[in-house]
Amino acid sequence: MSGVTAVYQIIANKDSLPKKAEGIALGLTVGSWTDLPLLEQEQLKKHKGHVVEIKEMGEDALGKTMAEIHIRFPRANFSTDIPAMLTTTFGKLSLDGQVKLVDLKLDDELLADFPGPRFGISGIRKQLDIYDRPLIMSIFKGVIGRDMNYLLDQLREQALGGVDLVKDDEILFDNELTPFDKRITEGKKVLDQVYEETGHRTLYAVNLTGRTFKLREKARRAKELGADILLFNVFTYGLDVLQGLREDEEIALPIMAHPAFSGAIASSERYGLSYSLLLGTLTRLAGADFSLFPSPYGSVALEREKVIKVKEALTRESSLKPAFPVPSAGIHPGLVPLLINDFGNDCVINAGGGVHGHPLGAKGGGRAFRQAVDAVQAGIPLPEATTSIELQEAIRLWGWKDGITS
Amino acid sequence: MSGVTAVYQIIANKDSLPKKAEGIALGLTVGSWTDLPLLEQEQLKKHKGHVVEIKEMGEDALGKTMAEIHIRFPRANFSTDIPAMLTTTFGKLSLDGQVKLVDLKLDDELLADFPGPRFGISGIRKQLDIYDRPLIMSIFKGVIGRDMNYLLDQLREQALGGVDLVKDDEILFDNELTPFDKRITEGKKVLDQVYEETGHRTLYAVNLTGRTFKLREKARRAKELGADILLFNVFTYGLDVLQGLREDEEIALPIMAHPAFSGAIASSERYGLSYSLLLGTLTRLAGADFSLFPSPYGSVALEREKVIKVKEALTRESSLKPAFPVPSAGIHPGLVPLLINDFGNDCVINAGGGVHGHPLGAKGGGRAFRQAVDAVQAGIPLPEATTSIELQEAIRLWGWKDGITS
Repeated sequence: MSGVTAVYQIIANKDSLPKKAEGIALGLTVGSWTDLPLLEQEQLKKHKGHVVEIKEMGEDALGKTMAEIHIRFPRANFSTDIPAMLTTTFGKLSLDGQVKLVDLKLDDELLADFPGPRFGISGIRKQLDIYDRPLIMSIFKGVIGRDMNYLLDQLREQALGGVDLVKDDEILFDNELTPFDKRITEGKKVLDQVYEETGHRTLYAVNLTGRTFKLREKARRAKELGADILLFNVFTYGLDVLQGLREDEEIALPIMAHPAFSGAIASSERYGLSYSLLLGTLTRLAGADFSLFPSPYGSVALEREKVIKVKEALTRESSLKPAFPVPSAGIHPGLVPLLINDFGNDCVINAGGGVHGHPLGAKGGGRAFRQAVDAVQAGIPLPEATTSIELQEAIRLWGWKDGITS
Repeated sequence: MSGVTAVYQIIANKDSLPKKAEGIALGLTVGSWTDLPLLEQEQLKKHKGHVVEIKEMGEDALGKTMAEIHIRFPRANFSTDIPAMLTTTFGKLSLDGQVKLVDLKLDDELLADFPGPRFGISGIRKQLDIYDRPLIMSIFKGVIGRDMNYLLDQLREQALGGVDLVKDDEILFDNELTPFDKRITEGKKVLDQVYEETGHRTLYAVNLTGRTFKLREKARRAKELGADILLFNVFTYGLDVLQGLREDEEIALPIMAHPAFSGAIASSERYGLSYSLLLGTLTRLAGADFSLFPSPYGSVALEREKVIKVKEALTRESSLKPAFPVPSAGIHPGLVPLLINDFGNDCVINAGGGVHGHPLGAKGGGRAFRQAVDAVQAGIPLPEATTSIELQEAIRLWGWKDGITS
């Protein structure tokens, strides 16, 4: 019988673990079991939750046992949507002490009823006609309160540096100075112009914001206006909203999931969801083509181990297309060897300050990133790529790290 | 200038607090300040975040300082919706170390653009024609995998006990055995029948589930079918989805917010949102008429102090109507004095096991609750209400607590 296996990290007294696990399996499904008449047990069998495994993981500082509990929930219990699956596996339970939902393992049959990314890594690569290197993305900086000219100048500078993608600042909402529609249409003109001048195509991810029940209409308009990609603050809306946008055939645009607010759900070691489940498994399941997350290198950093798990959840073999991992924050050109070592070619290298803060401006920053990728692919240590002026300027400012010394 | 003041709890080195606070105020608004030309400062002034207060709250075990930082965000920076407000105040910041968003204080002008509850406490009281006592609610138990007859029998038993509200189990989704439409129409017949027999009106909160972009259509149908109240797992969907349902004039039904999954966002002491902000301020802002939360009395318990703050956020003086606080879990009739002491008359006393586990069944459980309320209102200690048979049975089983010894 199809279903989902939820993996919880629980901190409790060792002796209480089996009872606790059974309590979860029953409490979130049929309610009670041993006191039911045999006939009713027979009827309810296909709805009962099952403890699959209890794995002890050590003790915490207070002598409590940390354990991983695997519980299987039959699909018969919930409708095929993320809210129902989360309510079943972690609704009431999220309120019940030190319990963290670290993974959801969906059976193939259940998985097949979720869309996953519409384009995925290969679809995005095809749009850009770039197959053999990580993509480079940069972010608008300091655009709140600025007008269209300011924004378009910044867009042009970034594109001229040869970045593949430029994304809106996630805190840029619909506003009079730089309204959504204009950002799309005027931005498009700038990027077309740069393409004519340089032959390099840069895509622009516009921030889709506003009221939930108006998003689809707005996204369809974005499509008509020629938008390339939708940036979306999934976690202040809901994963099912992302899925609804993904599935809308009249939108059919790549979606870039921003991790804003995800820290509220995934930062604690003892509560909430794991980052790999939230920004990896579920974000891919719902249909994002890109998932941003803090890189392990910057000041707003996630531990490397967690980040690699997010990447794996986004890209592991599955009936769903893989989504682009986008390690972000604290990225400068000197980190490219490390990034390629940690994430391979199938990632998007995303920088803000590392592009705009370049001594030669955003254009120089973009170039430095592209040069760094070229150097790594040619097997040349960054400081030895001496003809790459912008890269050397970047290294002088920010230093560099060899990919091997991760 | 209108806006919102975010209150953060931060754990950091004492010396770093002013810089950290300023970093948040700028990083989440205009990006930089002191290095801007005066003319640009003048242009961006109305978009700049401001540190209003830094209040040191003591040290943690590692000698780090806990502080409350108040930062004001101008309304000019975000559109008038909860996702935008959360992204601005806690988007990127949620990922940046030990920071908890404990409150959002909206100016009157901003507040006026959110709906709040459609009915609120007074509207629900009017529907029920009950003005002078807490309402009593009970919950379906163990209905997964059961058929309509089972469900309707349970509904009838609960209603016969004199409870004012019965709510679906939040893990009951659309299913073949007990489909949504049938629960509404058949449930209505049962409750009408009980009303004819007893003169007491019980309302039924049906669980609104499924895909986000189909919820409004489904809720409108629920309205047409004669549904009383919508139960809604807000936190697996999104607060703005709740607001969209609240604002739909063709739905216009009371909405009961279930706290499923809220623990993933609010349980940690160091990350995420406070319970009072999530289940209180924001849930009311978005328009729930009822907000459920764990009572401080049961095994799935919240600390009393936190629970009282949720209640205050739901009911404090404001341009928005107050919403019913619904302390839940671990409630039995013997706790009614304590509940009335802690929550007053304007609450819903919500019980599952405390109704169904009564020696005389759910009917007896409901009666015991009503009798307990009567006794408290008459100033009679529960054990002295000797003519209240069901109440005495309940006390024999579960004990009781005087309201004063909270």
